[in-house]
Amino acid sequence: MTTRALVLGGGNIGRAVAFDLAGESGWRVTVADNSPTRLAALRSHAHVATTCVDLRDPSALQTLAAEHDVVAGALPSILGYAALRSVIRAGRPIVDVSFMPENALDLDAVARANGVAAVVDCGIAPGLSHMMVGDAASQLTACDRVRILVGGLPAVRSGPFEYKAAFSPWDVLEEYTRPARVVEQSKVVLRDSLSGVELVDVPGIGELEAFYTDGLRTLVNIGAADMAEKTLRYPGHARLMRAFRDAGFFSKTPVEVGGVSIRPIDLTASLMFPQWAYEEHEPDVTILRVEVDGRRGGAPASIRWDMIDRYDPGTRLRSMSRSTAFPAAIVARLVVSGAFPAGVHPPEAIGRLGLLDAVLRQLNARGVHCMRGGPTPIRTSA
Amino acid sequence: MTTRALVLGGGNIGRAVAFDLAGESGWRVTVADNSPTRLAALRSHAHVATTCVDLRDPSALQTLAAEHDVVAGALPSILGYAALRSVIRAGRPIVDVSFMPENALDLDAVARANGVAAVVDCGIAPGLSHMMVGDAASQLTACDRVRILVGGLPAVRSGPFEYKAAFSPWDVLEEYTRPARVVEQSKVVLRDSLSGVELVDVPGIGELEAFYTDGLRTLVNIGAADMAEKTLRYPGHARLMRAFRDAGFFSKTPVEVGGVSIRPIDLTASLMFPQWAYEEHEPDVTILRVEVDGRRGGAPASIRWDMIDRYDPGTRLRSMSRSTAFPAAIVARLVVSGAFPAGVHPPEAIGRLGLLDAVLRQLNARGVHCMRGGPTPIRTSA
Repeated sequence: MTTRALVLGGGNIGRAVAFDLAGESGWRVTVADNSPTRLAALRSHAHVATTCVDLRDPSALQTLAAEHDVVAGALPSILGYAALRSVIRAGRPIVDVSFMPENALDLDAVARANGVAAVVDCGIAPGLSHMMVGDAASQLTACDRVRILVGGLPAVRSGPFEYKAAFSPWDVLEEYTRPARVVEQSKVVLRDSLSGVELVDVPGIGELEAFYTDGLRTLVNIGAADMAEKTLRYPGHARLMRAFRDAGFFSKTPVEVGGVSIRPIDLTASLMFPQWAYEEHEPDVTILRVEVDGRRGGAPASIRWDMIDRYDPGTRLRSMSRSTAFPAAIVARLVVSGAFPAGVHPPEAIGRLGLLDAVLRQLNARGVHCMRGGPTPIRTSA
Repeated sequence: MTTRALVLGGGNIGRAVAFDLAGESGWRVTVADNSPTRLAALRSHAHVATTCVDLRDPSALQTLAAEHDVVAGALPSILGYAALRSVIRAGRPIVDVSFMPENALDLDAVARANGVAAVVDCGIAPGLSHMMVGDAASQLTACDRVRILVGGLPAVRSGPFEYKAAFSPWDVLEEYTRPARVVEQSKVVLRDSLSGVELVDVPGIGELEAFYTDGLRTLVNIGAADMAEKTLRYPGHARLMRAFRDAGFFSKTPVEVGGVSIRPIDLTASLMFPQWAYEEHEPDVTILRVEVDGRRGGAPASIRWDMIDRYDPGTRLRSMSRSTAFPAAIVARLVVSGAFPAGVHPPEAIGRLGLLDAVLRQLNARGVHCMRGGPTPIRTSA
């Protein structure tokens, strides 16, 4: 029997999801995007069908989803929630990595009513990170402290920003603008994103800086007293971005300049995003570190995970595409196999359901290696 | 007999020039500006007359200059050269601090023909710096190396830029954009402004960074094999400004964004300059260090000058206003007293003419203290 998979979005991440699913025997993959050129590039790279649709049209999405057995959402965050709702309304299971600002769990009742399983935030972080924390939580008697460090970087530092965006640069600016929810003394508090800068040594990469971003999401409910996600960049990036942000260059409110009205973020995007664009075949590196400290029985216990992944010249997939898309593609198979009950599931549920090992084995087979420490290869200040 | 002085420009610097000249008995000072509100504020601060004129109108300036005995130019750099030419054509002596991009010495022949003395670049740096180098050059058999470090900073670091502009912020961006002429192995070479960052310890201020700016100007002809000016800022500023500059945020070439055409620099100015504006009574600090190394007879000899000046709450004049305007006001008196022959004079001529001591005595009387070292209170890497 053939499994018909629909991938929403043919960007860096969607392309890698499609690439992976199309390699599975018995799967037929269609990628939907509104850009014909993006779809043409995609067909030359993977054996997939493509369909050009307006991804902002809910009824078109619903109709399209109904023609498939499973959907993988890899859209920019701004389109994520509406697309998720359309697919659930179509009665089809979905795995999503769009990092939508809305709370996907609000659709849980609809998903249950439609008998549909949806797994959201299913990339690297949120995604793999949360699966690891969910797994750790089920192994420990209590979780006290959770730290997630994550970042995707060009392998070679260059240019004024020493950064390139391996997914939608608009979503990177969202990360730099949206306050970060962290947990301190068991309370959810808001910290400025780009604040809380600390230096971290990463073997083979060197000194990076880590700063708060809003990546915990559903994980704030896991019950640890002290939790934070920090994003990794080459040192100096946070201060640079704070200057742009705090002076108003990321603002969406139009200003009058020289007789015209303009949103500062639009000019910023037009000047900054070309600087943030990877060259073809330009290698990147993606780093994930997850630390969970708690107790097992009466004794203190710690669980550590490290992943350092690099551009793969064989598949021409960047590490950010690999480490974000492969978890989604792997979980899409689990969804089809019936591993999830109806409802909307955050990624930590995968860990709680005992599925982390299965996901990590599949990642390993794709060359994405997560190492459980032991001695901690990435040194943090903690 | 009354000396009628005209000050062009009623900004931070022009205001301080007017304030100083109006305190001299027998002097009557008029400030010309195109902003009625700026002029009104000025009248409440100093006993000066004001006149509202379009400072871009050469014939209006020429007529106005002809009604005065001496002129002090304190306009933004973009207006400097045309104003200088108008005053020389009016046959009136002038002291200028506008830091014009053009070569003022091109007007030397006209000044001689009109029997007019003009002293240009007569602020702190270029200005005081060049007087010190001119004086040192006349004391030494040969000059080998000249270093000028100069900077004006808010006394308290704050905000994303840790910088405020004590003169036209447009001219600050000019400094960050225009390549810096430096002398290496007796050749004039161009270095990127904001490059060549080194760290400098300033007593009472702490660690600052110094980077190339285009301040040598006429001094490149003084014959030293190794010369550079560097600007002082709180550390990190150069990298921040390089990112803005290199990504195109200082560009004057219009770009199309969201259906409108806009010069990036105009949006940048509208967002950044409010961040760079001093609060009323906000204290600043201005630092100048001049190093000249050479030989006297056969022996190596070094001359060092240090100045650290601070906001004066008594006069409500910022140190940048004091240390830029007072040299101009002092030299205006020297010009009136006939100390200069007809022609356009760069500031190093003041040192060569043996007038540095007279200028420094007058500065001292105004609380601006330049210290000749001896042991070097400001430590540089050299």
